[in-house]
Amino acid sequence: LKIIFDLLGGDNSPFAGIEGCVKSLDRYPDTEFILVGDEAQTETALEQYTFDRNRITTIHAPEAITGNDKPTEAVRTKKDSSMMTAIRMLKDDGDISALVSTGATGSLMAGTMLRIKRIKGIRRPAFCPVLPTMSGGVVGVCDSGANVDILPSQFVQFAILGSNYIRAAYGIDDPKVALLNIGTEEEKGDELHKKGYELLSNTPGINFVGNMEARDLLTGKYDLVVADGFSGNIMIKSAEGTALELLKKIKRDINKKVKYKMGAALMYKMFMEEKEFMNYQNYGGSVLLGTEKIIVKGHGSADVNCVMKCIELAHSMYIHNMNDKVNEALETAKETIKESEEKEDV
Amino acid sequence: LKIIFDLLGGDNSPFAGIEGCVKSLDRYPDTEFILVGDEAQTETALEQYTFDRNRITTIHAPEAITGNDKPTEAVRTKKDSSMMTAIRMLKDDGDISALVSTGATGSLMAGTMLRIKRIKGIRRPAFCPVLPTMSGGVVGVCDSGANVDILPSQFVQFAILGSNYIRAAYGIDDPKVALLNIGTEEEKGDELHKKGYELLSNTPGINFVGNMEARDLLTGKYDLVVADGFSGNIMIKSAEGTALELLKKIKRDINKKVKYKMGAALMYKMFMEEKEFMNYQNYGGSVLLGTEKIIVKGHGSADVNCVMKCIELAHSMYIHNMNDKVNEALETAKETIKESEEKEDV
Repeated sequence: LKIIFDLLGGDNSPFAGIEGCVKSLDRYPDTEFILVGDEAQTETALEQYTFDRNRITTIHAPEAITGNDKPTEAVRTKKDSSMMTAIRMLKDDGDISALVSTGATGSLMAGTMLRIKRIKGIRRPAFCPVLPTMSGGVVGVCDSGANVDILPSQFVQFAILGSNYIRAAYGIDDPKVALLNIGTEEEKGDELHKKGYELLSNTPGINFVGNMEARDLLTGKYDLVVADGFSGNIMIKSAEGTALELLKKIKRDINKKVKYKMGAALMYKMFMEEKEFMNYQNYGGSVLLGTEKIIVKGHGSADVNCVMKCIELAHSMYIHNMNDKVNEALETAKETIKESEEKEDV
Repeated sequence: LKIIFDLLGGDNSPFAGIEGCVKSLDRYPDTEFILVGDEAQTETALEQYTFDRNRITTIHAPEAITGNDKPTEAVRTKKDSSMMTAIRMLKDDGDISALVSTGATGSLMAGTMLRIKRIKGIRRPAFCPVLPTMSGGVVGVCDSGANVDILPSQFVQFAILGSNYIRAAYGIDDPKVALLNIGTEEEKGDELHKKGYELLSNTPGINFVGNMEARDLLTGKYDLVVADGFSGNIMIKSAEGTALELLKKIKRDINKKVKYKMGAALMYKMFMEEKEFMNYQNYGGSVLLGTEKIIVKGHGSADVNCVMKCIELAHSMYIHNMNDKVNEALETAKETIKESEEKEDV
């Protein structure tokens, strides 16, 4: 497996990326890395580690794309940036199977859309981050923001992509798939979601269990939430914001009384565990599904731990031949998708 | 102020409603209640309280509408139910200014849409629940689920309705209004939200501060979130679900070690305060805005405390002449709304 790693644009760039790649070499003896960034800086950083130099190559592309760059402009004007160079190499070099980046999400999406082939039958790629559930598992959300205007047939594509990802990366055999809606009843929601429910119910090969409400995101009832990118994004951010604000409030309140501080001291380890449980760094990032190559977007604030998790995700998708399985699933479901697409004015 | 109270359909019906009304008599000497439900049962329950009998009348309509009734059918087939009777009386009796119900939301919405006049210039009523913020205030969300398919001009209507409600019910002079979107930048979101941003920016008389992300719902940065009903609903349920699941997890984890239990014992009062802080019963329920009469929908599980909060909300809207102020605001913003509506294919 050859992974190209975009070193720039993240909060801890480039060092978290460099260390994460070097540390992953031992874990995955079948893997090689191409590091794209400021070559001199990368080489100097690499000198502090002992590893097989044949397994890491460096590419010089010192320009970074940041969150301040407008994606559509970044794609055109920053062609030699580390991200766009990595995307171009991913496209051109048949030996490179995966890209990992902790750079700007919008630009990664825009660059990928422009250069990397989609899987046949997939209208547009979708982001699928995972969150920890309170029952100790994970739940994926596909799409979580790459597609704000969608067609009903895309729900089926998201379900197929997400199911195969959850299976490949988290070893869940028959992921329970639910459609994000404003109620669990079949007739809930707007026309898009009503049609989506109908299509998902009729799609062979996925384990569709019905509509879900956002309040059940973290309960562990579902392994994959299928959502339009707009409401999927809002559900995730609302959950993340609430968890963060609530823990901050508890922390503030503890400091109000000596008695609370004493209690909290006894519970210190537990609170650390809760914090760790919700630390998104442990869950890597969001994969972009639906392209012929593997693309993993690490959090902008990714640390070494997070980078290694991203590499693990790319590796899992690769060794489980995820995209081959997606192709098979699309073939199985092709009647459902085709029938719907014919009615959609695409 | 004459309030008609639908006693049936809630988890604690009819007794929470009866007690809540009786207890509110002292607080609001200007207020009278009409209680709709099983008259014999209501009269028997009322006998245990001492109060001015001239200020409470009872109406016999013993049939309840539940969450299992399909709203469109309930409106037609359960015309004599307590809810539909209350709605009819609210419509016909000019002296009755407000309706409070803890019954089924969908049916209340359907019945209201059919019978109660909308404020001129408002396309459809909208629900506006409030949530507690971590800075100790509240934030309203309008709409939170009454409208799943909306037109851009409705964002302006929601902003006007919500701002005036937050001002009347919570005493916030110049509520900061944000549009729920998937990013804070102006150009974020689908066409609907881009157009909504533009309209809100150009609406005189509201304090529009821009797009917001769902992660900032509880931070206290905003007093009112304007949202399409679909994503507003998802944001709220995701926040509620996360808070609930997180507290449940903490509770479970405390029980794992004696040390944690000891710590938690010291922090008992604090945990109770957190629980109370997030107890939605303290925040009453969701008002339905945009109708000529005041309509408050209490939580299905409303207790006496929650019922009294609902009555307080109705009373505040009444004494602050909220709807007059909405009319003035609609007049001020009429050019913005008109211009947009002309382009919308209504």
